[in-house]
Amino acid sequence: MRLMKLSQQLGERKIIEIIQKHLDLMPKMPIPFGDDISAYDLGKGNLAVLKTDMLVDKTDVPPKMSLWQAARKTVVMNISDFAAKGIKPLTILVSLGLPRKLNTKDNIEEIAKGLNAGAREYNAYIIGGDTSESSDLVISLSLFGIAKKGKVMLRSGAHHGDIVAVTSFFGKTSAGLKILLNDLKASRKIRRVLTDSVLMPKARLKEGLALSQTKAVTAAIDSSDGLAWSLHEIAKASKVGFLINRLPTAKEVERFAKDNKLSPLELTLYGGEEYELVLTVNPKLWNKAQKAVEEVGGKLLNIGKVTAEKQVLLEINGEKHIIEARGWEHFKNEAKNRKVL
Amino acid sequence: MRLMKLSQQLGERKIIEIIQKHLDLMPKMPIPFGDDISAYDLGKGNLAVLKTDMLVDKTDVPPKMSLWQAARKTVVMNISDFAAKGIKPLTILVSLGLPRKLNTKDNIEEIAKGLNAGAREYNAYIIGGDTSESSDLVISLSLFGIAKKGKVMLRSGAHHGDIVAVTSFFGKTSAGLKILLNDLKASRKIRRVLTDSVLMPKARLKEGLALSQTKAVTAAIDSSDGLAWSLHEIAKASKVGFLINRLPTAKEVERFAKDNKLSPLELTLYGGEEYELVLTVNPKLWNKAQKAVEEVGGKLLNIGKVTAEKQVLLEINGEKHIIEARGWEHFKNEAKNRKVL
Repeated sequence: MRLMKLSQQLGERKIIEIIQKHLDLMPKMPIPFGDDISAYDLGKGNLAVLKTDMLVDKTDVPPKMSLWQAARKTVVMNISDFAAKGIKPLTILVSLGLPRKLNTKDNIEEIAKGLNAGAREYNAYIIGGDTSESSDLVISLSLFGIAKKGKVMLRSGAHHGDIVAVTSFFGKTSAGLKILLNDLKASRKIRRVLTDSVLMPKARLKEGLALSQTKAVTAAIDSSDGLAWSLHEIAKASKVGFLINRLPTAKEVERFAKDNKLSPLELTLYGGEEYELVLTVNPKLWNKAQKAVEEVGGKLLNIGKVTAEKQVLLEINGEKHIIEARGWEHFKNEAKNRKVL
Repeated sequence: MRLMKLSQQLGERKIIEIIQKHLDLMPKMPIPFGDDISAYDLGKGNLAVLKTDMLVDKTDVPPKMSLWQAARKTVVMNISDFAAKGIKPLTILVSLGLPRKLNTKDNIEEIAKGLNAGAREYNAYIIGGDTSESSDLVISLSLFGIAKKGKVMLRSGAHHGDIVAVTSFFGKTSAGLKILLNDLKASRKIRRVLTDSVLMPKARLKEGLALSQTKAVTAAIDSSDGLAWSLHEIAKASKVGFLINRLPTAKEVERFAKDNKLSPLELTLYGGEEYELVLTVNPKLWNKAQKAVEEVGGKLLNIGKVTAEKQVLLEINGEKHIIEARGWEHFKNEAKNRKVL
């Protein structure tokens, strides 16, 4: 019953589409609507890069996440988009909506410390902001950075034949959320790895910055809406398809799925709030890209290739399966999120 | 009883103070914490100027304000701070928190159109954003502009002997709010002027930009928290006092106050959400400043002078009265705001 009602709600992407339709377009917009960041042309090949994203506690804060962690997570989720585009964040502004029940010195300090910790982790500074009273805890950040025009990694440049790459194994956040929500089985060590991925996410900034220097990346996005969704977004923006033949499931997720009779494929593909990078790489520059990422302490996994045929497919034991265009979308996942809280 | 409870809530300024205490300071911050905008030094005398401010319907949207007007107002209140600092806004990002009950195509279109109308009114463009689900309608904007380092009008440069100036007469918004709330008496014409000041506020961008070119302004702020509060903020930042001898009460406010047995002084000094500029001007450059504002169709009213003695005083018929440091502060005015909604 609930779901029937929910299906009448417009999802995040539809809302943004409606809004964009009614906006006058800035002439010579250097980054088109629909990518993960926005930009203003500063001249001489430089762009001012801007990004805003909002955390709302009732949909974005799972149980057992502290205020400090929620504040830090807000920074990470914004920086992750800069990471995916290869842009160094410089400054952050905070717009804080504080509910009456959280309006105490201790809570505000915890939020401030979490924001500062997140910013400093990625060498950015919080330089200003504002506060209001609201019903939910709302932390809206805006990031600013400067980029060279040709070095921004967009969603739209993937070519047939490119290698599809990711910066780590997947599924930890969806498994971690299930543990936080439903207290599913896991050994202490695995539980820690999986829940940490939710409570203490990391943005792949070093990896993104290193990759943007190689010019090897033809398209990029972060996986905050899930691996499947990220692939579909690149496919749509680049007018290509994918054949994934090495599903990057984390070993902890394999174990967890087995113990709880869950599908590792489902956990890997259709999770969300997982801040890895999903990239397409010019095969001639693959070694260069991989080396660049390894030099900053990261890894680059080859999980498949870009196809001319516009389908997003997964090959398992020679058989092809469709990877669905579903993932983490706040408004549409609201039923799920409700349970989270 | 309610007020006693409220007094335990921390106000907007105290919250910001607590947050700032826990932030690492960016080295060489070109604009100090506590002014109305933030900045990053782009080199060669240029600053990237950044600003964020959030509208929350339950405290910022009075009755009879449409969604279109609320969205436009969010733009105006952000641009007003750029205006006060003499900075041209270039781009705007939108972070929209949408409650379930407003999630329809018509409502979203109305919000988008209001945002676009506000942006275009001041020659800025909306170039990106994000949306989430929230309990309140939350519209958080972030503005970006570029300024010459020496031309930003700060709060902190007022000198003893400077002229205190404002860009219009005051009191319309506090009177207008009383009409919207309590249906107080006013002729049709006056009602229109007063309620329009609330529903269709204007930012003094032309005036601010013209003034920043004159170098006549020693300190500036917008009056969004009320005239009295604005004077106190400049007094504090500049370590000076004020002697106001021409209270700038709008003629419609005089009339309205008389008809409803209200104090015109109270309406003039202690209102809020009034987006005029409050400035201190080097007396040697007064004519230049006034001419610059008149050339763009505005006016500059001399309402008093800056004093070395650190008090904010109002002189009426030769008698001096203290102008209190109170005004519009969201958290602390919550009781008032509740009534508004």
